[in-house]
Amino acid sequence: MDYAAYFAKHREEHLEELKSWLSIPSISALSEHKEDVLKAAEWLVEALKKAGLENVGIHQTNGYPVVYADYLHAEGRPTVLVYGHYDVQPVDPLPLWKTPPFEPDIRDGKLFARGATDDKGQLFLHIKAVEALLKEEKDLPVNIKFCIEGEEEITSPNLPSFLEVNKEKLAADAVLISDTSLVEDGVPAICTGLRGLCSLDVAIRTANTDLHSGSFGGGVPNALHALVELMASLHDERGRVAVDGFYDDVPELSPVMKEEFDKLNFKEDKLKAELGLDALYGEEGYTFVERIGARPTLELNGIYGGFQGEGTKTVLPCEAHAKITCRLVGKQNPEDILDKIERHLLSHAPTGARVSVDKREKGNPFSIDPTDHLLQKAADAYEQVYGKRAVFTKDGGSIPIVEAFSRILNVPVVLMGFGLPNENLHAPNEHFNLHNFDKGLLTIVEYLKRI
Amino acid sequence: MDYAAYFAKHREEHLEELKSWLSIPSISALSEHKEDVLKAAEWLVEALKKAGLENVGIHQTNGYPVVYADYLHAEGRPTVLVYGHYDVQPVDPLPLWKTPPFEPDIRDGKLFARGATDDKGQLFLHIKAVEALLKEEKDLPVNIKFCIEGEEEITSPNLPSFLEVNKEKLAADAVLISDTSLVEDGVPAICTGLRGLCSLDVAIRTANTDLHSGSFGGGVPNALHALVELMASLHDERGRVAVDGFYDDVPELSPVMKEEFDKLNFKEDKLKAELGLDALYGEEGYTFVERIGARPTLELNGIYGGFQGEGTKTVLPCEAHAKITCRLVGKQNPEDILDKIERHLLSHAPTGARVSVDKREKGNPFSIDPTDHLLQKAADAYEQVYGKRAVFTKDGGSIPIVEAFSRILNVPVVLMGFGLPNENLHAPNEHFNLHNFDKGLLTIVEYLKRI
Repeated sequence: MDYAAYFAKHREEHLEELKSWLSIPSISALSEHKEDVLKAAEWLVEALKKAGLENVGIHQTNGYPVVYADYLHAEGRPTVLVYGHYDVQPVDPLPLWKTPPFEPDIRDGKLFARGATDDKGQLFLHIKAVEALLKEEKDLPVNIKFCIEGEEEITSPNLPSFLEVNKEKLAADAVLISDTSLVEDGVPAICTGLRGLCSLDVAIRTANTDLHSGSFGGGVPNALHALVELMASLHDERGRVAVDGFYDDVPELSPVMKEEFDKLNFKEDKLKAELGLDALYGEEGYTFVERIGARPTLELNGIYGGFQGEGTKTVLPCEAHAKITCRLVGKQNPEDILDKIERHLLSHAPTGARVSVDKREKGNPFSIDPTDHLLQKAADAYEQVYGKRAVFTKDGGSIPIVEAFSRILNVPVVLMGFGLPNENLHAPNEHFNLHNFDKGLLTIVEYLKRI
Repeated sequence: MDYAAYFAKHREEHLEELKSWLSIPSISALSEHKEDVLKAAEWLVEALKKAGLENVGIHQTNGYPVVYADYLHAEGRPTVLVYGHYDVQPVDPLPLWKTPPFEPDIRDGKLFARGATDDKGQLFLHIKAVEALLKEEKDLPVNIKFCIEGEEEITSPNLPSFLEVNKEKLAADAVLISDTSLVEDGVPAICTGLRGLCSLDVAIRTANTDLHSGSFGGGVPNALHALVELMASLHDERGRVAVDGFYDDVPELSPVMKEEFDKLNFKEDKLKAELGLDALYGEEGYTFVERIGARPTLELNGIYGGFQGEGTKTVLPCEAHAKITCRLVGKQNPEDILDKIERHLLSHAPTGARVSVDKREKGNPFSIDPTDHLLQKAADAYEQVYGKRAVFTKDGGSIPIVEAFSRILNVPVVLMGFGLPNENLHAPNEHFNLHNFDKGLLTIVEYLKRI
């Protein structure tokens, strides 16, 4: 079968279909869009039915529903579970959009709309790939299941329990997700690692009230001094996290991984120039991509205390606050890391300061061995279509649901992305490059045929 | 003459008069009270005329006017210049006032009103003391000048230039100010030192935009890390300011001064309990009163950067801010200190961080030798009236105008206060204890007769 010809023939029709889905403002974070989110789920049901999938249905959760569909007629063949999401990010600031976020517009070979690449556009490729196979071959080379949620952009609060409850229904040999990106145009990538995440808020209190710096300055603890001293104690002079035991469960970089990172041929100078930085900074002894891909972090995301207005206020503030997140790798456990940080903070509390810690989010790191045959087959499929074999990357971000699939269904997760890093995810003017739309369709067909 | 009898006889009348002045909401900080501030100046003109003073007049400045009056008929005798202010602090939060701030109310032997002690009530004592002397003796034992401003609560922006221009008109042998307080009830005090002040804002910038902590965390500078590291570098582990040369012009505590501080018999445990503190904190080797009275400080008054909302935001902030004030002593020069701090901050800038410094306020420290005969005579007057000799204190606060009088008119400044530390200056329910009102009148008469 010539799928290139097939997709070329149906291109207009496919794009019109996708545009109709992108026109639905399914913003899960904003309750005023509740009807729109549900409408996007219904649209999806119809699209899956039209593609020829079976058992298409809407499954309620405590939040937005999960859309499920399957086609299980390839006896003795592996089962692939496709995950994606039909909800999208908010669109603020609206004035920065060149065309309205929910009036999809194609220009310069790109499709502009909220959700164009994250994730409606990428998910749509899977639906159309399956539709093509069913139309052209009246059958699929694998068993396939779709499990599509509507709460990814609000941290998937209900999906893990949905996976637990429906473990058997969702059982598969691989989970396939297209919600990541190529390294750069023409260089396909398969993400083999995502960092975990944990977060905490720190509060420092000194006196029972703010004090006048004339009457008390120099003689009583100042919550801001305590805060900067305590926060500065969290890193050492080599850029390492100075919390006891923080690196206990962090694997050293293997020569194989180092080689994969080197293959990326990352240009640190270019990044510096783009960000307007005099210097990059991080843990001594690692390159930028190694730091992002394979090393854990402890980052201050916010600090505040005392007077923030114009001019001068001679106050000794009695409270100060910091917000911290860690990115985790290897076998680091978020609970354990939060405990270790809390111990550090309490045991390093400066004189006269009471420190309290509020532990918040917890997500495990994810990683998969690039030599897994399902990943190698994905790299083969990319090579076939792109003329270039996919590199195996590690992403610094956290997609907790990936780790949840891997852990709850106990199955390899293949992150096969077709976006590009500069397609304005979560920002104004989100778009999807249509040559990757085209190649994505072919790559998925190729992949399903190869496994 | 029995001035005790005289003041007892006129007490009702005096208090009614003061209450009428206190009823005028002369809040200099709020432009909607402009007419009230001017009305308070006019009230003052009438009161000075009624007291028998001459050359009473309103002198324009670029802001609120200065009220001047004199009585210069004591040939060969010293001249005393009385300074005070007719403006008051704002009254927020209004609901915390038990009686309205501009409806003066006497209860439990205290006069409650905004300005009751700061400074209308205390300044009023000088007017009535002079009035009493002129009525009873038809003459004054000294030459006297009044120079009363209406902008003290907004940092006296126009008074220094008024002093410069009117140097000769205002020439005197002593400046007498009642705008401070006793150590505690029954323990009179003469303040012989006020700390200077300088302030600066610090801004730190890293990348040209906030960055996502997943994609960049651990590989680029974080403005908050740079801020806490830089701010923590400003003090050493002994609580000393770690800026090169900061202590160059700070005199060591003399045995005489140490003795004066010891005389205060300050209870550090009581303060700790009042403030709800586990521990006091400051420069190693000094007591609380020494730290406040005789040592300089560098204090953070505010810090902020990044996310301050609820929940977690995985952001690497690209800017961070701190607001700093220093209290200065001895010969420390605010310009010089600001330069030294700037040098420290720039030379300690963490990797990848650009530091900028905005220098703001500058005020010199003030101090006077307690053995000055004018101060000794003031202590004598207190002893006569209170039955207890005044102690010589150093106040940690800054009243820049005191240093300005001392420097521009080149004359000793006698800080002879009658307030109490807990009379809610600048706070709701400001009040003046009337037994100190009574004793204040007598002490001033006594002082004018003795010099």
